[in-house]
Amino acid sequence: MATHPAARGLDDDCAVIAIGGETLVLTHDMMVEGVHFVPGQDAADIAWKLVATNMSDLAAKGAVPVGVLLGYMLGRDDARFLVGLGEALDHYGAPLLGGDTVSGPAGAQALGLTAIGRATHRPVPARSGAQAGDRVWITGPVGAAMLGLEALRAGAGNSLAYRRPRALLAQGQALAPMVNAMMDVSDGLLLDAARIARASGVTLAIDSAAIPIATPESRRAEALRWGDDYQLLFTAPAALAPPVPAHAIGHVLAATGSPLLLDGMPLSEADGLGYQHRAERD
Amino acid sequence: MATHPAARGLDDDCAVIAIGGETLVLTHDMMVEGVHFVPGQDAADIAWKLVATNMSDLAAKGAVPVGVLLGYMLGRDDARFLVGLGEALDHYGAPLLGGDTVSGPAGAQALGLTAIGRATHRPVPARSGAQAGDRVWITGPVGAAMLGLEALRAGAGNSLAYRRPRALLAQGQALAPMVNAMMDVSDGLLLDAARIARASGVTLAIDSAAIPIATPESRRAEALRWGDDYQLLFTAPAALAPPVPAHAIGHVLAATGSPLLLDGMPLSEADGLGYQHRAERD
Repeated sequence: MATHPAARGLDDDCAVIAIGGETLVLTHDMMVEGVHFVPGQDAADIAWKLVATNMSDLAAKGAVPVGVLLGYMLGRDDARFLVGLGEALDHYGAPLLGGDTVSGPAGAQALGLTAIGRATHRPVPARSGAQAGDRVWITGPVGAAMLGLEALRAGAGNSLAYRRPRALLAQGQALAPMVNAMMDVSDGLLLDAARIARASGVTLAIDSAAIPIATPESRRAEALRWGDDYQLLFTAPAALAPPVPAHAIGHVLAATGSPLLLDGMPLSEADGLGYQHRAERD
Repeated sequence: MATHPAARGLDDDCAVIAIGGETLVLTHDMMVEGVHFVPGQDAADIAWKLVATNMSDLAAKGAVPVGVLLGYMLGRDDARFLVGLGEALDHYGAPLLGGDTVSGPAGAQALGLTAIGRATHRPVPARSGAQAGDRVWITGPVGAAMLGLEALRAGAGNSLAYRRPRALLAQGQALAPMVNAMMDVSDGLLLDAARIARASGVTLAIDSAAIPIATPESRRAEALRWGDDYQLLFTAPAALAPPVPAHAIGHVLAATGSPLLLDGMPLSEADGLGYQHRAERD
């Protein structure tokens, strides 16, 4: 998710601080009812997603979770929230270290989670390290969460990919020593690729047909612009054979007029590269 | 502020974790419009208070701020919020490390702040260390924030104590090596004294007349129950002469039937020891 305006120019979605010989990675994501989750959605799924999105930020840094702090506004189904929270924290091996619970007035529920991780490799991967000549990779298909949200809204079909996204912690740790740039795809592959390009001062040339998608071919263009799949997007020297399953989807070029070339055509954010907030969309 | 139910039994308002030879103190506070701040209040003051409450949690641990992560829901006056945020972070020497900004739907604005500090003394002071025979101390008067809120609502008089509370970081660092238990008074002196008693398995015997108050004498009982003053409440061996200004207000006894004796009379939370949320009060 987006960083605060005043924090722009700091390291990506995460803060990276050196403490006592260790490097800590800290991230905070906020979710608001009606913006980041569908009103009426199972609170256990909301809790899972809140944890998973933060764990995915740690994954992109190759970090191991140390624990989380929760900011919790009491909602309609606190017991279900705690169930999902427990499931997610157990899954990711991240203890609940503390936090704050507040009563909420009538209106949208807001939730915040801070995740603390320990870097396994230094320098910690950032968006800003892509080098001309790198190959661009993604760990898996995009578009699954889009189909999941549609299934959830239809009340039929498999909505798991939207409700219970998986953060790729092990993959991020394996990749951290080998990549030049890395981030998790939370807001849409094309948008996030443009962010790497801009942060690195390069152009990413993406081959759309090479991108693995979870959707029918007819929906490829949408899949490239939807978020919430939490795959890892990374660039690495062309000779690298990634140590985890990954798909080569393009190359890094010296900066051109546009941060992003899709099948050779320049794209800009004005072209609708992605969406910040899924639940707002329709 | 209160910790999440699932976090009860963990260390107080703060998480304390050992990392690479250092001890980190982490705290997260959430504030909601209409609950923790008055709708229409200057956003710069809200930002200041959000920072100060978290800094006060660090102060009670004798920690030095490392930085903060902000969860910010866009509100009515984001520019003013940034002004107050900058003033507070500058005052406390705490850099903004990162965070998340989200759009908010119509309704109450919610804000979260995570503060990270480095402990200056181990063991880190906790609520749970009070020993029978200790003296009970407070660093300064209570009731100032109560008067400040009244002034703010009346639109006349000095409201600074409510709007711009000061976290006692230097005092907390000086006290940390000497105290048996310490916390900041955020929810009312009597309520917070009862929390120390309960966490420590002792009884705190408080002498009401010894408590410094910022109000007229006629409002002493209220001042003891209002929060938001962020004084440090601590217990220490009777022989200790505190290294910072402080007032002796009672003694620690072996556990009696009640966590709190006020002028020899048992008090319980049912007696209204304090208030969780000021802005809700009337």
